[in-house]
Amino acid sequence: MRIKVSFLGGLNEIGKNMTLFEFDNEMIILDVGFEFPSADLLGIDRVIPDITYALENKKKIKAIILSHGHADHIGGLRYFSKDLGYPPIYATALTIGIVKSELPSYVSKNLQFNEVTLPSSVKIGRMKIDFIRVTHSIPDGMATVFHTPYGNIFHSGDFKVDLTPIDGKPIDLQGIAHAGKEGTLLYLGDSTNADEPGFTASEKTVGLKLEDLIRAWSGRIIVATFSTNLHRVQQVFDIAEKVNRKVLVDGRSMMNTIQVAKELGYSSIPNHLLVKQQESQSIPDKKLIVLTTGTQGEPFSGLTKMAHNQHDVLKLKKGDKVIISADPIPGNEASVTKNINSLIRLGADVVYRTEGIHASGHGSREDLRLMMSLIKPTFFIPVHGEYRQMFAHCKIAHEVGVPEENTKICDNGASIELTKTTMKQVGRVPASPVYIDGRNIGDIGQSVINERKVLSREGVLNVVVIADIKKRVMTTSPLIETKGLISSDFSSDLYEKVTKGIQEIVKKWSTQNGKGSDLEIMIKGYLSGFFSSEVHRRPVIFVSVIES
Amino acid sequence: MRIKVSFLGGLNEIGKNMTLFEFDNEMIILDVGFEFPSADLLGIDRVIPDITYALENKKKIKAIILSHGHADHIGGLRYFSKDLGYPPIYATALTIGIVKSELPSYVSKNLQFNEVTLPSSVKIGRMKIDFIRVTHSIPDGMATVFHTPYGNIFHSGDFKVDLTPIDGKPIDLQGIAHAGKEGTLLYLGDSTNADEPGFTASEKTVGLKLEDLIRAWSGRIIVATFSTNLHRVQQVFDIAEKVNRKVLVDGRSMMNTIQVAKELGYSSIPNHLLVKQQESQSIPDKKLIVLTTGTQGEPFSGLTKMAHNQHDVLKLKKGDKVIISADPIPGNEASVTKNINSLIRLGADVVYRTEGIHASGHGSREDLRLMMSLIKPTFFIPVHGEYRQMFAHCKIAHEVGVPEENTKICDNGASIELTKTTMKQVGRVPASPVYIDGRNIGDIGQSVINERKVLSREGVLNVVVIADIKKRVMTTSPLIETKGLISSDFSSDLYEKVTKGIQEIVKKWSTQNGKGSDLEIMIKGYLSGFFSSEVHRRPVIFVSVIES
Repeated sequence: MRIKVSFLGGLNEIGKNMTLFEFDNEMIILDVGFEFPSADLLGIDRVIPDITYALENKKKIKAIILSHGHADHIGGLRYFSKDLGYPPIYATALTIGIVKSELPSYVSKNLQFNEVTLPSSVKIGRMKIDFIRVTHSIPDGMATVFHTPYGNIFHSGDFKVDLTPIDGKPIDLQGIAHAGKEGTLLYLGDSTNADEPGFTASEKTVGLKLEDLIRAWSGRIIVATFSTNLHRVQQVFDIAEKVNRKVLVDGRSMMNTIQVAKELGYSSIPNHLLVKQQESQSIPDKKLIVLTTGTQGEPFSGLTKMAHNQHDVLKLKKGDKVIISADPIPGNEASVTKNINSLIRLGADVVYRTEGIHASGHGSREDLRLMMSLIKPTFFIPVHGEYRQMFAHCKIAHEVGVPEENTKICDNGASIELTKTTMKQVGRVPASPVYIDGRNIGDIGQSVINERKVLSREGVLNVVVIADIKKRVMTTSPLIETKGLISSDFSSDLYEKVTKGIQEIVKKWSTQNGKGSDLEIMIKGYLSGFFSSEVHRRPVIFVSVIES
Repeated sequence: MRIKVSFLGGLNEIGKNMTLFEFDNEMIILDVGFEFPSADLLGIDRVIPDITYALENKKKIKAIILSHGHADHIGGLRYFSKDLGYPPIYATALTIGIVKSELPSYVSKNLQFNEVTLPSSVKIGRMKIDFIRVTHSIPDGMATVFHTPYGNIFHSGDFKVDLTPIDGKPIDLQGIAHAGKEGTLLYLGDSTNADEPGFTASEKTVGLKLEDLIRAWSGRIIVATFSTNLHRVQQVFDIAEKVNRKVLVDGRSMMNTIQVAKELGYSSIPNHLLVKQQESQSIPDKKLIVLTTGTQGEPFSGLTKMAHNQHDVLKLKKGDKVIISADPIPGNEASVTKNINSLIRLGADVVYRTEGIHASGHGSREDLRLMMSLIKPTFFIPVHGEYRQMFAHCKIAHEVGVPEENTKICDNGASIELTKTTMKQVGRVPASPVYIDGRNIGDIGQSVINERKVLSREGVLNVVVIADIKKRVMTTSPLIETKGLISSDFSSDLYEKVTKGIQEIVKKWSTQNGKGSDLEIMIKGYLSGFFSSEVHRRPVIFVSVIES
């Protein structure tokens, strides 16, 4: 059997996970994610993988497996399902529920969903595939095991080793050990927290801390967390029941996820705990918990609206306690901190970056060491992480006995071929990031981003000169407009200077034998020089010379 | 005596510290800083305080006191010294040395520097002022005590309580206690780490950790830190001496500061430890330490150049150890992490975010509690911090007995008046941030930044239509140019659509009785609508209609 693994996304980054597994003439896709753009991708809404290689092999595609319901694993479905020919989807019930609730119905109605229970085995094409439960910050995550003639290919999914998760369904260590014992050819493992020491705390520890905080407070409580963290959400409801408070669920995404989880039986939320916005006004502060999103300072989230006093209903005041039950995702620190400052300014007591109020969903060094030891792979490729994290994950592999030459840090686009005794990169497939801005996909590349970068720093200058080419004079004063270049208080002075400068240039040009297009170049050159030397700026410059 | 304190900068922010103290008709300025712009201030190079109020009172200005040599306390001198009439400067020798080395000589030659020794008292105008040593991440920092008829006004400067600093000059707790004992009317205290628990570690602990790391490594070592952290720099040299390694100082700012410190006797760096770039090539890796900057991922710093393999001389390789001896300043996380990934990719062993390799220069809760208890002020205003930090600092004041109504969180621009028994805000002075972009000061305001924001996300479209107004037709096809809007691969399609659309508009206009300017508005309206509905974008649009 010819085995090939190609990475379309998820390496050297946290986001847009998508891996293609080829077994002879069959292809199985594991995860189809998108990524939120980094701050330097100006104006970009989403980044998605380049699926060219999958499209070239469209006939071979047998299935899409979704390891869990986070956007960096399922968010690409919206863009790709149709082009990929709506392959059958394999995922757990919760993951399917979230996919359905997020996809427009014109996409989801064409998809065939195969619900996976854990543990279970399926046959997809010729391949036997096992799914094994792992624990993460969303319930119902799974590892995937491909049975090949040379041993198993084991993909961890996103995981931590949580032995006391809230849903009573711990990571299936026996199942993992069993798959390992069968003989693992290749292990692909989540590296997100590989450079964090120790074990990642169990979700349960967060509940204990939250309960302490909530019991000790006599005013209103606002808990912000990720809407998909159903464990955390469940714990807030459990605590509410214990301490006799009602819960107001705030924000569409939080309501949606809770709705899906309730319908599918993933949450046990008694109706008597839930209150609507109108009712909540008549409930004493000491009897209320507000559950909301916005831990990352997202502009339209509940917590951000509250912080900026723009929430329709919830106005913060002295006596409110806000618990931010999440860590800032790298890159979001500034907006998170801005929210914290604003919330405190409104009088709220804010609990942030405090030991115990959050636990990551990704395993730290010791989780990864344990997993690696249960699986004992011949070959190892770290996935789902930045370089530093994949590197740290490789070190862990070496420590527990995987030979250095059997581990490999790959880049997006790498195609790896495996035999019983070898693993090597056999080529590259297209895997550049594809940018989505507004409605269109792919009509914006790095050059447009670079133009935006210049515009963002320097602004733009537009000059239209109307010249009589025969008489070699300007017919009227040049039209000058700027955006992002200078305050209007100062612009008339500037326009005057520039107008004079252009007049000089026209005079110079009139003594030469040039064409109108020469004048355009001369004016552009003059303007670049003027701005660069006078004010040390390099705006984008449009010059149009119109013959009158 | 009429006592007024006005804050031009440094509140609700870390940066551009500048405070005006008025005692009847005399004004003393404490610190003149600038600020590096936050990421949303597109294209801005520096942010400085608005000194309008100081200029209005220019005749009253008696002196500028500089508490220490960091840019957020001295960086505004370059811009303001002349306008303020070159007031005499009071600062310690190191601070003066750094100011002189950084200011252009046409500024510094006009300044009169009064070197302050610690502790000491001076008379400035009618005021008796004491300077007391505090410890910080740069040597020779000081607190300032103004003796007023109603008690002392005590300004802490930036500080932590370091009892074992590297220069053997600990914070002068006796002096501080003495000033407190005299009776403190108002305490203005550094709040930066007020929301961090415990005491801030002594600088000495960092040296112990660095020494362990360096001793245990047999390859080349690169230590990155702030050039102004002369304690840290000294410790690297001390360790080099102990472990018998040479030190290559990399980068202009690091060389400058070391030069100033050596000249003024603030560093004891034996010449035999120093090697030049050329020599360093012939020194075995195990005998070399490179001391560089770039802990914040600054684009042109030594470490960033090494990370991107763009350093003239230093090429990183397996066997190199890089120690990043600083925390990322909020907002810099992404660029710091990018460097770390690149350094590891080059083969270096990178020590980052590791317990003990850095100690902050600002006091944590317990430092602040101790300081507050030594000073025991009647009134307290937290300075040098974001809202959350100033708020936490107020809490500390309350805990050690300052009544809540005697503490006040102020905004930049607040003017506070003090009597023996009262502290109240009496008005506001101009204190909006002033932006520097390129060479000019203040010709860019928030509206320009907002325009840049749109340009950065949406790009710009420039359309020039040449129309025969009498015949009511376009003379030629419209000229269309874009920047930051669409990739060139897709633009010809777009231009074609837009051209057709404009032709329709001209047709419509030709049947109406409008002027050329109406056509401009109609075309602009059409283009906005087209981009918004077709591709969900809202570029900046220039339309010029030229009559032919």
